[in-house]
Amino acid sequence: MKLATIKDGSRDGQLAVVSRDLKSAHMADAICPTMQAALDDWAFIAPQLESLYAQLNAGHSSASTRRAFDFDPARCMAPLPRAFQWVVGAANVDHAAGSSPEEPLMVQGGSDDLLGPMDDIVLAHEEWGIDFGAGVAAIVDDVPMGATPDEAHGRIRLLMLANEVSLRKLMPAELAKGAGFLQSKPATGFSPLAVTPDELGEAWRGGKLYLPLRATWNGHLVGQPDAGVGMAFNFPQLIAHLCKSRKASAGSIVGSGTVSNRDTTLGYSCIAEQRSRETIADGEPSTPFMRFGDTIRIEMLDEKGKSVFGAIEQVLKKM
Amino acid sequence: MKLATIKDGSRDGQLAVVSRDLKSAHMADAICPTMQAALDDWAFIAPQLESLYAQLNAGHSSASTRRAFDFDPARCMAPLPRAFQWVVGAANVDHAAGSSPEEPLMVQGGSDDLLGPMDDIVLAHEEWGIDFGAGVAAIVDDVPMGATPDEAHGRIRLLMLANEVSLRKLMPAELAKGAGFLQSKPATGFSPLAVTPDELGEAWRGGKLYLPLRATWNGHLVGQPDAGVGMAFNFPQLIAHLCKSRKASAGSIVGSGTVSNRDTTLGYSCIAEQRSRETIADGEPSTPFMRFGDTIRIEMLDEKGKSVFGAIEQVLKKM
Repeated sequence: MKLATIKDGSRDGQLAVVSRDLKSAHMADAICPTMQAALDDWAFIAPQLESLYAQLNAGHSSASTRRAFDFDPARCMAPLPRAFQWVVGAANVDHAAGSSPEEPLMVQGGSDDLLGPMDDIVLAHEEWGIDFGAGVAAIVDDVPMGATPDEAHGRIRLLMLANEVSLRKLMPAELAKGAGFLQSKPATGFSPLAVTPDELGEAWRGGKLYLPLRATWNGHLVGQPDAGVGMAFNFPQLIAHLCKSRKASAGSIVGSGTVSNRDTTLGYSCIAEQRSRETIADGEPSTPFMRFGDTIRIEMLDEKGKSVFGAIEQVLKKM
Repeated sequence: MKLATIKDGSRDGQLAVVSRDLKSAHMADAICPTMQAALDDWAFIAPQLESLYAQLNAGHSSASTRRAFDFDPARCMAPLPRAFQWVVGAANVDHAAGSSPEEPLMVQGGSDDLLGPMDDIVLAHEEWGIDFGAGVAAIVDDVPMGATPDEAHGRIRLLMLANEVSLRKLMPAELAKGAGFLQSKPATGFSPLAVTPDELGEAWRGGKLYLPLRATWNGHLVGQPDAGVGMAFNFPQLIAHLCKSRKASAGSIVGSGTVSNRDTTLGYSCIAEQRSRETIADGEPSTPFMRFGDTIRIEMLDEKGKSVFGAIEQVLKKM
């Protein structure tokens, strides 16, 4: 099923079920108020949401779906507008220098302010080196400490897309301190829809999502690498890494990191990668970072060309 | 006022007001269900909680306080059992090699699972180098991006004590990667009470809390450094550092990091510091890390010897 969080002026928004074709939606208020509340009691809540989803997809009017409305991603918050955990694995070894074949690099991120798919990216200075970053993220149920990848696999509840914004010029100083990224990782944006893995059919296999992730910058398609092909660690491995010495609570979000493929003809999912390639080829980077007014669109289409998660489409604005 | 979260089997517990002398408590359910809900709407909720607090301290029975009960820290969860953000500044420059006089070192921590004051610390291996860490933490209201330290100062709502557990033997590998601490920082414990700054009188000044922080390990007092004296950066500076490129949402927790004073006769707030002193003096550390069955108690007494926040008292157990 496909779920969204609709803006209502509150901090957590309202949970809604969205039809498979993204055309219509229905508030889930008769079942559960918010996405976090659904995740807190997933075994009990999810079947009820699935039932509403089935009726919404069936299209015929019924008592349960009489308040269906046209789905509008501009009304969406992030599926979890604030979360109790957001960690990002640098699962794409091609992309992340710090990752090793044995163990993923994983960064604890800020989760108190997660942006909706059409929320502006508001920052103070272009000079910070503002970069987008197209990735996939999983929302998990409770995962016990010491869980194996197999155990972790069964705790993945929802998948979504992420725009992991980085401030590249602030990163070297933070990297040198060795304490992770704080100022160089501002608020992350998410797709309008969070989708259960069963919606993805064969594209979801081995704990990876095998579909191209399209990044369109100011109207130009700049990347469409496959989100599964580039992953050296799958989501179950990332979750197990997180849970080595602590549990993860329901609603924790685990990101793949920026997608990257060895096949460079597929373009790039973040500007830093393109600049790195340019530096290797030409001695210096030629693609500039984002400028105020720029738009970044991130979307994933299925084999039939249908949008799976809806699109992230954010404009960069000056604070 | 003094607030606590009482265990009720739910993930967020129930908000309670606790008398100044820690003897009695009263559920705040007629005002607000949880600590996060209070922080979400602090300007509206806090005065109502203050009123209940005043009546509870007055001691005489009234319609509002007729359900008062004996306060028992064993019934407490962390004031915020799960939070949307937990960052730790290494504000004690003596302690943290990575901090500079210009800028604090700050680490994003896991906030999805915060331990109550008497919850066991459960871990798998003594060989991980299990260390306690006594510190002070502030809970903030919404803080806008780019806030100055002065602006941040006015957004501090509550203070509490923290036991920042570290797995010292897992830290070098994570430090080498430069991506922060993930596996080496398991769940953090918190004092039973979260206290408004006005409760602290002159001890809270200049954005620092000037009182000794007592650490008692297996019944032996091992440290009582002053939590204010050691801070090279005050809480407003730490919060402003966090908010350089992003806002902080209500309920974000900002920790001071492990307290440390230049005066070594005051002992230590984490084992690593003692081991470091031993290494300098004797060429090698002699104090071992924690063993399963060990107890760590962390408490702060006011000038009259009264416990301000109640005590953290946790037993280390094998998973």
